[in-house]
Amino acid sequence: MAQTKSFCIGIDLGGTNLKAALLDRTCRIIDKRVLSTASFRKKEHLIQAVAGSVDALLVTHKLTKNQVLGVGLGLPGPVDADKGIVHFFPNIPGWKEVDLGRILHRRLGIPVFLDNDANLMSLAEYTLGAARASRNAVCLTLGTGVGGGIIIEGRLYRGSGYAAGEIGHMPLNERGRSCNCGGSACLEAYVGNRRIMKEALAGFGKKISLEELSRLAGAGNSRAVRIWAQAGRRLGVVLSGVVNLLNPDIIVIGGGVANAGRVLFDAIRKTIAQRAMPVQVKSLRVAKAKLGNDAGLIGAAILVQQNSSPTRNLRRSFTQ
Amino acid sequence: MAQTKSFCIGIDLGGTNLKAALLDRTCRIIDKRVLSTASFRKKEHLIQAVAGSVDALLVTHKLTKNQVLGVGLGLPGPVDADKGIVHFFPNIPGWKEVDLGRILHRRLGIPVFLDNDANLMSLAEYTLGAARASRNAVCLTLGTGVGGGIIIEGRLYRGSGYAAGEIGHMPLNERGRSCNCGGSACLEAYVGNRRIMKEALAGFGKKISLEELSRLAGAGNSRAVRIWAQAGRRLGVVLSGVVNLLNPDIIVIGGGVANAGRVLFDAIRKTIAQRAMPVQVKSLRVAKAKLGNDAGLIGAAILVQQNSSPTRNLRRSFTQ
Repeated sequence: MAQTKSFCIGIDLGGTNLKAALLDRTCRIIDKRVLSTASFRKKEHLIQAVAGSVDALLVTHKLTKNQVLGVGLGLPGPVDADKGIVHFFPNIPGWKEVDLGRILHRRLGIPVFLDNDANLMSLAEYTLGAARASRNAVCLTLGTGVGGGIIIEGRLYRGSGYAAGEIGHMPLNERGRSCNCGGSACLEAYVGNRRIMKEALAGFGKKISLEELSRLAGAGNSRAVRIWAQAGRRLGVVLSGVVNLLNPDIIVIGGGVANAGRVLFDAIRKTIAQRAMPVQVKSLRVAKAKLGNDAGLIGAAILVQQNSSPTRNLRRSFTQ
Repeated sequence: MAQTKSFCIGIDLGGTNLKAALLDRTCRIIDKRVLSTASFRKKEHLIQAVAGSVDALLVTHKLTKNQVLGVGLGLPGPVDADKGIVHFFPNIPGWKEVDLGRILHRRLGIPVFLDNDANLMSLAEYTLGAARASRNAVCLTLGTGVGGGIIIEGRLYRGSGYAAGEIGHMPLNERGRSCNCGGSACLEAYVGNRRIMKEALAGFGKKISLEELSRLAGAGNSRAVRIWAQAGRRLGVVLSGVVNLLNPDIIVIGGGVANAGRVLFDAIRKTIAQRAMPVQVKSLRVAKAKLGNDAGLIGAAILVQQNSSPTRNLRRSFTQ
């Protein structure tokens, strides 16, 4: 008897962690593992760790490869999602034009699909999260880096070189401090975690975590409120440009910093309402991401399912 | 015997002119008329003038309505292209939620299709002009207003409220002078015709036309070069954000100011190369629009043909 392929494996590779999960066909996470990537300095070791995580999930759940539809990987850099090639990782050295899809497929004997992590977060929020009711969505992840993904007319838009969605590298000003990307005055240089930590250090005279800064703002501490309100205003300025350009029906904001909550979101919404054009603002919602840290894993499973059955309406079939 | 519908009529309505043209099925202009819109203060008069232009073209060329596939209109404001409704015109008072498609269809007895003028320029440049070889294109028109249109995966992208493409209203700076649109520090406030004329006045101590300013820059006049280079740099800053966000394969720039030529384009290209991300820049061309002032009329005819035969690959069928 042929076994049905009832499972997907999702992998979310970040600069510090490797997350691996077993998901069912409705993209619910059944089991999740987290490994530190610090010990995998060499490319081969990292590939080995990814493959090992897949094997470990199969063994634990007594699954054969035939029961797995595919492995989806979210990666921290530009990826040719059609050919399964990693162009490079900005924060992990040693990766350049790596044919990772084929390497892993050979090693695992299971179909493998790759995409950029922010794209997969967007795909997840669009299919099962905050952007479910939308057609055109812009998703943003706030962290050390400020990443993004774009859904156009119900499809993930990757751009001509698989590098679309870099909202963090849109300029906030004509001139400004240089950015890691090679540009200058990029949004990320103003609202990335590092900058906010610096402002907290300056404002409080001591090192303070982002969690603590969020808690303080929630409790009404005026210095903390000011830092988050400024970050929100700056995000709002760049997003008002994105809104005028793309006229989306929703902007979804996720990532650790999004937990700063109401102060941040109020400032973003207020700035967009002031700066973007009325027609665009009328049809816009700004919402917090719903899937949290699991968005990348869920998006990886959705990627597998989309590639395995391209005509399937995932949003409809996932409706619970 | 049934007559074949071999012709389209294109209308390009601007703040100052109403252009009307008869086009053949390859979207070549057979005849073109230009009327000043200054005398049509009332909405009804303007509608009458549009209908009258269509009638006049039919009479002159001894055509019956049955020989015309449809009438396409390019309009200076946000338009619901699916329902044929004008939301409003920023620069022509008295238009609000006007069911123009139906009004004209009743009056003319010919199918009528509407869209924003920058969208039709983009459609024309994508189908028959500078963006022919591309899949993802951003088109820009430089004039009193700075408009834009977006082609995503070979289709015109209109946005959730039919208002996408407003590149002129993306912010160049966090703070800056207020703009007609209600926002502030918008690109248009820095590189629109009015601002460039002001800079020319300040630089030369007398009123100077944009044509003259372009001619002077071409002849190497340093003051003129400086004005255009600054406009190009500012366009380049905002476009580097667009490039990082959308990763298009081409940016097409048209409109009167684009005639400033090499100085302007060099500054735009140089700034994008400096500010945008290397992966995005690698797959990008910046090109001058090819269809000039007729782009709107040609785009209007393409709109008619797309709506009349949605599955037809216009680019392929138009290849000469």
